[in-house]
Amino acid sequence: MTRSDLFAHLAARLGDRFQTAAAVRDQHARDESHLPPAMPEAVVWPLDTAEVSAIVAACAAARCPVVPWGAGTSLEGHALAVQGGITLDMTRMDRVLAVRAEDMDCSVQPGVTREALNAELRATGLFFPVDPGANATLGGMASTRASGTTAVRYGTMRDNVLGLEVVMADGRIIRTGARARKSSTGYDLTRLMIGAEGTLGIITELTLRLQGQPEAVSAAVCDFPDIGAAVDAVIETIQAGLPMARIEFVDEASIAAFNAYAQAGMPLRPHLFLEFHGSPAGVAEQAETVGAIMAGHGAGAFQWATATEDRARLWKMRHNAYFAAKALRPGCQVLTTDVCVPISRLAQAVQETRADIDASPLQGPMLGHVGDGNFHCALLFDPTSPAERDEALRLSHRMAERALALGGTVSGEHGVGVGKRKYMAAEHGEGWQVMGSIKAALDPLNILNPGKIVP
Amino acid sequence: MTRSDLFAHLAARLGDRFQTAAAVRDQHARDESHLPPAMPEAVVWPLDTAEVSAIVAACAAARCPVVPWGAGTSLEGHALAVQGGITLDMTRMDRVLAVRAEDMDCSVQPGVTREALNAELRATGLFFPVDPGANATLGGMASTRASGTTAVRYGTMRDNVLGLEVVMADGRIIRTGARARKSSTGYDLTRLMIGAEGTLGIITELTLRLQGQPEAVSAAVCDFPDIGAAVDAVIETIQAGLPMARIEFVDEASIAAFNAYAQAGMPLRPHLFLEFHGSPAGVAEQAETVGAIMAGHGAGAFQWATATEDRARLWKMRHNAYFAAKALRPGCQVLTTDVCVPISRLAQAVQETRADIDASPLQGPMLGHVGDGNFHCALLFDPTSPAERDEALRLSHRMAERALALGGTVSGEHGVGVGKRKYMAAEHGEGWQVMGSIKAALDPLNILNPGKIVP
Repeated sequence: MTRSDLFAHLAARLGDRFQTAAAVRDQHARDESHLPPAMPEAVVWPLDTAEVSAIVAACAAARCPVVPWGAGTSLEGHALAVQGGITLDMTRMDRVLAVRAEDMDCSVQPGVTREALNAELRATGLFFPVDPGANATLGGMASTRASGTTAVRYGTMRDNVLGLEVVMADGRIIRTGARARKSSTGYDLTRLMIGAEGTLGIITELTLRLQGQPEAVSAAVCDFPDIGAAVDAVIETIQAGLPMARIEFVDEASIAAFNAYAQAGMPLRPHLFLEFHGSPAGVAEQAETVGAIMAGHGAGAFQWATATEDRARLWKMRHNAYFAAKALRPGCQVLTTDVCVPISRLAQAVQETRADIDASPLQGPMLGHVGDGNFHCALLFDPTSPAERDEALRLSHRMAERALALGGTVSGEHGVGVGKRKYMAAEHGEGWQVMGSIKAALDPLNILNPGKIVP
Repeated sequence: MTRSDLFAHLAARLGDRFQTAAAVRDQHARDESHLPPAMPEAVVWPLDTAEVSAIVAACAAARCPVVPWGAGTSLEGHALAVQGGITLDMTRMDRVLAVRAEDMDCSVQPGVTREALNAELRATGLFFPVDPGANATLGGMASTRASGTTAVRYGTMRDNVLGLEVVMADGRIIRTGARARKSSTGYDLTRLMIGAEGTLGIITELTLRLQGQPEAVSAAVCDFPDIGAAVDAVIETIQAGLPMARIEFVDEASIAAFNAYAQAGMPLRPHLFLEFHGSPAGVAEQAETVGAIMAGHGAGAFQWATATEDRARLWKMRHNAYFAAKALRPGCQVLTTDVCVPISRLAQAVQETRADIDASPLQGPMLGHVGDGNFHCALLFDPTSPAERDEALRLSHRMAERALALGGTVSGEHGVGVGKRKYMAAEHGEGWQVMGSIKAALDPLNILNPGKIVP
């Protein structure tokens, strides 16, 4: 089948859910990364698994790339059609298919966003805990092995997906995992698909593990004399085995951005943002223990946010960090970095990174999910200045190299996409070739999101 | 290379760590399953990764099967050399390579047993939580995706392995995962190897996540008027989101076995065995909440085991359930079943299974990690009676079919091995073929534990 035969076939089948207009393709050519746009040749909006299967089978017959698309919030260019082909916009597969409160699980289509799911769950007393900040789709979150502020307590997408339905490169439909809490039967295809960024199959349904809404929730912020003190306080908290729900580091430059963007009025010092989940007595006990650890590292008093609205405001401010950083310099572009190191190397990694940025002409507010050893910088550069772009890339590259030297990873949660593929050999060595063998076995025509992850 | 060339080569290289004596081969021909023995042609004891790599490469050249062997505690025949070849006895690769207390992780060789690791960790304030009962090797536990009594709190091997070193089918050595707590870079080769039962590679090193020893631990047992009440109490406890460290169901027949084997003197009723981990106040609060739930289901008063020795005695009794069951009928053989269902179907699954066994001439004490929906029966049969063996297999088959009909899995934690391969198509459908494609890509000569897992 030629490409034009394929397009005629899809147009006939899908009607106005097949589009080749430049404006539509352009909307799918850019995400929230710093990477150059890459336009697909067409965009389709499937409504169900059978359609995804038929589209992928047709694309296989035409040797046409298929790139799945969620909310477009990628920070590494995962869903950019770098080899052309068709973008499979999953946002109309947005139904919550079942909520089984008694089993604390649910089944959703991949285009459901995490906020939409949690809105639907509110009355059940359950919630889906993974929170990357952006209101990403759950299919996208699974594909990038996303995590975020709550991973320190509830784990990442790896831990919170019980099973998947996946359309393979030839259009076959498989179901992975089970609704049982655990299983020892065969290869873990669920975990293989999580983080595969659409290169091994297209996720068409997810069965997710849910958590009970905690009886009590308290959040607090506190400030520290310097970065080292804040990070050391995190390390001691984690090593004490305290079940923190969130423990986020925010540096002085990020506080300045929050103050400007959200009128936060916070002291210009490094902060930790904390959240505790549990029974009322448990939360109180945790807060007391953590408070003592923080005080031992020179922290100021806890500023509490216990009312729901206050907590919502706090975390909204944290989640808007990208926009707050961007607002520091009108017209700038943001390169968001994402490294993760063993907790013992966290203070060193954060401090050396801060020193690097301080020695650079660019601004780069830092923050991170430091309970996991994961932190980010928002490197602000003028997109019309090649020198500034190069400087941002240089800083980002130094962070990646440092993370590898310290036994860490070049991406804690944003994924490989286009931006991090150059580090795969350094991080995985011969294992990268093994990934390539798996890709070749499951997608021999290389039509699923080609140009990503594998050699 | 012919098989005899291979053996001559290995004998020259390994000296008395290459054995073909019948007695040695026979020791590696049987495990703790009910399956018929299967003798390897030779047994080798590698000392390090380089030797494993050289042995596997030589076996590849000779097209000779290689079957990894740990403690020999498999209940499904994983390590039986059903197609002959060489058994790779990993028990001399038994060193704890590094304990990094500040990162709460460690690196071990695959022949280290979980008890040996925990003995080594005792002084650090850390422990490795996965506890399948048997003193299995950590390589074997990873290969079968083992779990056990503490999975309800700490997860399974899937959740507690940060990374692996693996020798691939052609002798290449890869490292998977990272020491960082999380990563989003590429396919999850760690999880692919966990549960692969040695069919995709030979695990030569594991980096494991450790937990802080809880400040306070309390264990208790309580009895129930009937099975339904006990299981319903578990379901309510799990749904309340209580962080139980252990919640084990033991039926009346198992209690009878404990009373006979360990002079337990317990009332002949279904029991739950519970353990709480946390701060002293947290444990007290959990115990009170759980106690109220249990009482609501007609439980008798908690019998506490707070002193370390009392708890050790309690869990030793639980872990010896296999031997206690076997002792009910001298000379019998045991077929141990292992299904796992969604928690909402647990009461039905347990009660229908109990009714099946009650209607059978065989004895079959039941127990399980019911917080995960996972339970076992020890079906006792006379190994000289084909009729009894068939009856045990019939009961086991009914459990497996029931688990699948209820949305569960035919193995919660014991794995596929030889015994459960016949259910793979029913449980995984087309996904089983995908597993076969991965196997063919990574082990094209089919030398790694052939005859297991894949089509």
